[in-house]
Amino acid sequence: MANILAINAGSSSLKFQLIEMPSERVLTIGLVERIGLKDSVFIITVNGEKIKEVTDIVDHAVAVKMLLDKLTGLGVISSFDEIHGVGHRVVHGGELFTDSALITEEVEKQIELLSDLAPLHNPANLVGIRAFKQILPSIPAVAVFDTAFHQTMPEESFLYSLPYEYYKQFGIRKYGFHGTSHKFVTARAAELIGKPIEELRLISCHLGNGASIAAVKGGKSIDTSMGFTPLAGVTMGTRSGNLDPALIPYIMEKTGKTAEEVLEVLNKESGMLGISGFSSDLRDIETAAEEGNKRAIIAQDVFVSRIHKYLGSYAARMKGVDAIIFTAGIGENGPEIREAVLEGLEFMGVYFDPSKNNIRGKEAFISFDHSPVKVIVIPTNEEVVIARDVVRIGM
Amino acid sequence: MANILAINAGSSSLKFQLIEMPSERVLTIGLVERIGLKDSVFIITVNGEKIKEVTDIVDHAVAVKMLLDKLTGLGVISSFDEIHGVGHRVVHGGELFTDSALITEEVEKQIELLSDLAPLHNPANLVGIRAFKQILPSIPAVAVFDTAFHQTMPEESFLYSLPYEYYKQFGIRKYGFHGTSHKFVTARAAELIGKPIEELRLISCHLGNGASIAAVKGGKSIDTSMGFTPLAGVTMGTRSGNLDPALIPYIMEKTGKTAEEVLEVLNKESGMLGISGFSSDLRDIETAAEEGNKRAIIAQDVFVSRIHKYLGSYAARMKGVDAIIFTAGIGENGPEIREAVLEGLEFMGVYFDPSKNNIRGKEAFISFDHSPVKVIVIPTNEEVVIARDVVRIGM
Repeated sequence: MANILAINAGSSSLKFQLIEMPSERVLTIGLVERIGLKDSVFIITVNGEKIKEVTDIVDHAVAVKMLLDKLTGLGVISSFDEIHGVGHRVVHGGELFTDSALITEEVEKQIELLSDLAPLHNPANLVGIRAFKQILPSIPAVAVFDTAFHQTMPEESFLYSLPYEYYKQFGIRKYGFHGTSHKFVTARAAELIGKPIEELRLISCHLGNGASIAAVKGGKSIDTSMGFTPLAGVTMGTRSGNLDPALIPYIMEKTGKTAEEVLEVLNKESGMLGISGFSSDLRDIETAAEEGNKRAIIAQDVFVSRIHKYLGSYAARMKGVDAIIFTAGIGENGPEIREAVLEGLEFMGVYFDPSKNNIRGKEAFISFDHSPVKVIVIPTNEEVVIARDVVRIGM
Repeated sequence: MANILAINAGSSSLKFQLIEMPSERVLTIGLVERIGLKDSVFIITVNGEKIKEVTDIVDHAVAVKMLLDKLTGLGVISSFDEIHGVGHRVVHGGELFTDSALITEEVEKQIELLSDLAPLHNPANLVGIRAFKQILPSIPAVAVFDTAFHQTMPEESFLYSLPYEYYKQFGIRKYGFHGTSHKFVTARAAELIGKPIEELRLISCHLGNGASIAAVKGGKSIDTSMGFTPLAGVTMGTRSGNLDPALIPYIMEKTGKTAEEVLEVLNKESGMLGISGFSSDLRDIETAAEEGNKRAIIAQDVFVSRIHKYLGSYAARMKGVDAIIFTAGIGENGPEIREAVLEGLEFMGVYFDPSKNNIRGKEAFISFDHSPVKVIVIPTNEEVVIARDVVRIGM
């Protein structure tokens, strides 16, 4: 038996779960926000009770120390010795990491070098790694990369139609993200279907505020909708997804913005927020659409049509599909979107059963029993993948 | 009976066909190149004989005068009165033109205003329009727009997931191109299948040096792969097709290029040329791939996989498909590409018959008779659509 801390560090935040393995029981869960700012917030849930504390937390090392003290202070564990491993989510593993990795000096350096590809995320992830290393130097730490699962993509999926030197010199290619989630739900789908994953062709739809779709054949990602960055692919809460690339210079010229400023618009003011003009949250948009708000209806239609097209596209990519999976915020809790996205896919063997669809946040088949293609809702659990990988690689 | 001139004017070129209607017989065909440069070239084919003349042609008006003089001088017609209408290809009709239009002062002005959306093409098309107007002022002239056929696309297809104001203020949306070709081949497909086009769901693959795919339902374009500009969509000879938009600022930073210079790379040094490193011509790439050239093989694989994914995508968009059409240079003359693109689509009812596929440049069904989805090769003929529209609208 081992207790594993699964950590997701942002530039001013730290999310954590302490998971008992191999039972995969969550002992505690929490997060620290506003690290380095005034009035930082520490929240931890123990035995169903949520404890919140507002105090100044100057850096990640202090946040980690506080977290560990709380774990013992609140009796979750009796000493630090009862933490047997730490797993860190790291956004970008480039082409160096095709799997999770035990964190050594070398690995740390590589994560740092890859910051060029994920300037907002990798440095923050590193801060978390170093804070734990300082306080728990002798406990194995494992890095779990968002990109690693997609490293199995073949060249024709990951290469852009750009000068080939751009790939060789600058690392420009499709990396894909949400890999930990796509890995978890596709593995779980195989269990639920009762077939070896090696025999299955799965489309995994991770639909949250960020959204990506993956084609997973024989347990391996062979294509995914996000690209060089998490901006690409389907319409998201505030992100544009795919665009005619010629639009960037055109928008620059029309608005007088720099390329970086246009990129900011594409990341933060586009997607469903941009179309609707009032919210990035699908629930707000659904409510407004029901009330007849025209732009809310369009935002919804655009979101649905983009996902719908990927389902056909990835079915073609795998020469057919055995199951479609919905996960993450919208995927788990959006029955209307699931129904809309699945409409008219009978031609490829998808027979959706509306009577099974009224479920939120739990596992369920939502296709008819006779449907050749199964449709399954599976709540994602990236922390469990992190904990599993720490046990597999670090212990 | 009427003789119609179908004109395609570029910035330094003029292509023409004289077509007898309604028989659609081509009386003569030719082109003028290097207009405004030294040693301009005039080529015309009469009764199967190709006549070439090198001389200085200072502008389009002179080219038009020369063309008309040749038509009479070579006995194709006996006087200018035997030309009953002129049809001009115009690249961009924006949202103003949902069909071809009789060219009035007003229409001319509108085409000029739309030059903002097609700065390389519309001004050149206008030069052609004005040159004919000057010399044949009393003959009806019709503008046939590349974008018009796609104006039936619904909002969820043509809207990008960008701030909605960008659409309203700057006209940023998907327009689509090759409309004249998609219109021609889908109309022809309905004839060949023997069903009213209103009942058919068709995917039209126009694969040339520029390439686009359209989903045509009930005779109306409901989605297409090109976008705001002809850069978007699938991999092309030298164009990148779809990219993660975040790549533009990244490439700018890495190479020191301006946004406009990056766009130039995306338009002229990318696509199959960029990946292979040596040619934009699929025939060269196929030859090299057969000889084992690794990057030629990748270029081919990327090209094929992008088209393949659109087939699935547009089948989903239309809730199934009745026929897939191949046209234009590669579509008509590339049996290997057709076979590769169609591989593994049985799941959506496509049963390709390799024994029928060894044809080039002529009409043929290349699916098994029992295939629920027909696959048809149809040589495109944009000039005939232009001539038909001149008769329909101008006479």
